[in-house]
Amino acid sequence: MTLSNMFYGTTIAAISTPPGKGGVAVIRISGADAIKIAEKIFRPRGKKAFEKIIPRMQIYGDILHSEEQIDDGLLTYFPAPNSYTGEDVVEISCHGGILVTKMVLESAFVAGAVPADRGEFTKRAFVNGKLTLTETEAISMLLEAESAAQVKLSREKSRAKLKSATEEIRADLVSTLSSVFARIDYPDEDLGEMTSGEVLASVLAAKSKVEELISTYKTGKAVMLGVPTVICGKPNVGKSTLYNLLVGEDAAIVTDIPGTTRDVLEKNVPLGNVMLKLYDTAGIREGKVDTVEAIGIKRSMERIETAELALALFDSNSELDSEDLKIIESLVKTSAVKIGILTKNAENVNNTSQKSEYTCTKNEKTLLEMGFEKVLKISVKERADDARLQLSRIVEALFCDEKITIGEDAVVSSARQYAALVKAANYLSTAADAIKIGLPEDAVSSDVELALGAISELDGRAVSEEIVSDIFAKFCVGK
Amino acid sequence: MTLSNMFYGTTIAAISTPPGKGGVAVIRISGADAIKIAEKIFRPRGKKAFEKIIPRMQIYGDILHSEEQIDDGLLTYFPAPNSYTGEDVVEISCHGGILVTKMVLESAFVAGAVPADRGEFTKRAFVNGKLTLTETEAISMLLEAESAAQVKLSREKSRAKLKSATEEIRADLVSTLSSVFARIDYPDEDLGEMTSGEVLASVLAAKSKVEELISTYKTGKAVMLGVPTVICGKPNVGKSTLYNLLVGEDAAIVTDIPGTTRDVLEKNVPLGNVMLKLYDTAGIREGKVDTVEAIGIKRSMERIETAELALALFDSNSELDSEDLKIIESLVKTSAVKIGILTKNAENVNNTSQKSEYTCTKNEKTLLEMGFEKVLKISVKERADDARLQLSRIVEALFCDEKITIGEDAVVSSARQYAALVKAANYLSTAADAIKIGLPEDAVSSDVELALGAISELDGRAVSEEIVSDIFAKFCVGK
Repeated sequence: MTLSNMFYGTTIAAISTPPGKGGVAVIRISGADAIKIAEKIFRPRGKKAFEKIIPRMQIYGDILHSEEQIDDGLLTYFPAPNSYTGEDVVEISCHGGILVTKMVLESAFVAGAVPADRGEFTKRAFVNGKLTLTETEAISMLLEAESAAQVKLSREKSRAKLKSATEEIRADLVSTLSSVFARIDYPDEDLGEMTSGEVLASVLAAKSKVEELISTYKTGKAVMLGVPTVICGKPNVGKSTLYNLLVGEDAAIVTDIPGTTRDVLEKNVPLGNVMLKLYDTAGIREGKVDTVEAIGIKRSMERIETAELALALFDSNSELDSEDLKIIESLVKTSAVKIGILTKNAENVNNTSQKSEYTCTKNEKTLLEMGFEKVLKISVKERADDARLQLSRIVEALFCDEKITIGEDAVVSSARQYAALVKAANYLSTAADAIKIGLPEDAVSSDVELALGAISELDGRAVSEEIVSDIFAKFCVGK
Repeated sequence: MTLSNMFYGTTIAAISTPPGKGGVAVIRISGADAIKIAEKIFRPRGKKAFEKIIPRMQIYGDILHSEEQIDDGLLTYFPAPNSYTGEDVVEISCHGGILVTKMVLESAFVAGAVPADRGEFTKRAFVNGKLTLTETEAISMLLEAESAAQVKLSREKSRAKLKSATEEIRADLVSTLSSVFARIDYPDEDLGEMTSGEVLASVLAAKSKVEELISTYKTGKAVMLGVPTVICGKPNVGKSTLYNLLVGEDAAIVTDIPGTTRDVLEKNVPLGNVMLKLYDTAGIREGKVDTVEAIGIKRSMERIETAELALALFDSNSELDSEDLKIIESLVKTSAVKIGILTKNAENVNNTSQKSEYTCTKNEKTLLEMGFEKVLKISVKERADDARLQLSRIVEALFCDEKITIGEDAVVSSARQYAALVKAANYLSTAADAIKIGLPEDAVSSDVELALGAISELDGRAVSEEIVSDIFAKFCVGK
């Protein structure tokens, strides 16, 4: 991507605060004409002249629309390059009424601003070198964050670690490459440069660093993108109770956020650091198999096929029956991580405890033999907190790397970053093979260059415009 | 109300921007501990010490939760008394993600702030003398404004006019009162004070000023509170077309605002300066009268009884029939302003134009005789803009005082202000009568004092705590 073709001649404006009614709203204006536009729509009180405005100082005044006062509010001027976008930025705080906020924005348009696209402020910040693409993605993740772990992973400390890890790899590759080039240019001279063996070692060292980052993606994905999860089991085995248990504790977070449920059947439910993308199969749990129910069961089966985690419930007091086995069979065909949950049926626990214990152990053994990763016995109804904690520990252990501290360590958490790293690792692998079999050094240098290119994609130094557009399209207008 | 019993020892915090996801959110903290709390949750970048913070200057830094960075953002400090509330205020701008914003607020609570009540920032501003009650109400109106006329009426210029008009009345009454007191205290001396006739003149002059303000309430009410309006007429006469015409032009305003429709059957639709509270009788327009339809018709009749404006549609090509007359009869019983609308049925217009013209004129005459304020012939389908403009002019003429320029002149627009003024006018009337029939001067002074008290209620100098609570309860949290 060349930056020159992304030059912005326009001054943009948008409401940066969330839509709706509040106490305060902020209208952001960015571009060369920001001050010129502000002068037309804002009149400072106390006869302060616009030229005397101190950067970053909030000044009080009247907000005008077609030269008539429509509101009073505060204006702040952030001169380029020390602003969010790197351009001249003016922010106007007005009363947060829906119509009055719109009128202030409209006034900025009348004065010469053009409506900002989704994420255009952040895109300008990126183009002006204020943010790397990785940082941009982190902001996007922060705005969307629905769990404490997601906020941690988006925060600057975590971003900085990933940035410095990739910069270290880049520096290594640049230094390796310059050695290889020196050997190509002056093959017979001893320039104190690396030997062929040293180049190989250096390529392999870089590759191992890249692979280390790649290995963090499993954790990053589980925290950020979430794990498609199904709860399955025959009727009356406790699916609904488990579902409510999982959704319940974080129900405040889940239900407070409008628009997070991307599908009526899907709920994002944080469980420890992992975000479960829980498919709500609530509608198909019981009842006779009529047409609607049949469709429900078919859908449930489709969910099972695409899930990455299956929580399969079985009654701990009865031996696995043909219905259970049918569910197990369909799970075995999938690549999902399978956790067996033996639920206690409270009614039977007391009078059949010995038999129950025997059946339970037998069922556990069968499930582990059938390829279940873990089998746990929980009493969801009686000891809900304990059950949740147990399940949370098991899921975290299965999906997160215990060596990684979320928010402290570098973690790759977007598919784009992951793809770039895999590409880099592959090129470095080819480069290493080329050295090992004694291919000419320009073959080696070309592979290392390609690896460097892939690393550059990671932080947006080299990335296609479509990818950039794709990233910014995820933002709201006003960011 | 004594201010002392409203002293606030707590420091409050709330999200001041609208709820939901946006680019930026603002957390507002107000109270004696605002800076102490800010120090715990915000760490300025570049090692700037907190003591060196310049008032009103936005500084960049890290936002902390339990000493861990959760976001980066801007902090502004508004020291007392030069802040919105008159107390020490700190505003923190953070990224506008739903969860991250909540976490920043939670962090302020952990650091010692308490959650703000609805409108508590504004209430503190009022208690600290930063805003009069009238100004407070204007802010509330501005936040709720759904029409350009409402924004105009809420703006400071308009507020200032009302404020100065009431202050003039107050000053007049105070001066009259001091003359009366002088005459009571020194009945035999010539103090150069007013004669009895002069006191009467002065009381009558004040009364006339109060009445002038009272007379603006009709306009203020039509603009701010809205005019309950029904569209009625027999099936197929064009009610739906008129409804869509009225709702349509401002549909963007109407539908963009979540929660404005207070009742599924009611839509706020600006028509010129007037806000129509239009009852959507869409569901009951046609079809056979089954049970549901019957309930619908009953409701429609109830709406007609409470409406202040009735737009009654009749076919201009047919004479009024028994169905029309039934509608007219039910309208005649109400106090609603009745506008007859003779709609043209496009199919019949061409081949029966002469007959049509005759029928139309005849119908018009009947309707005017039956007590309709206006009858107009419109072709909603063919000349929609024209029809809307015609209706808008008629409605404005009926509900707004043409002498008043919205946004320029003092206008009373709340029921509370109106009630206070009516009370003042009544006391002044009694005072004038007392003077005329020669009652003792202390009787006069007592009435003038009561009038002064009523005027003081208007701007909140003297008003009961219940009324204050009532006003602030209308605000959102964070304002």
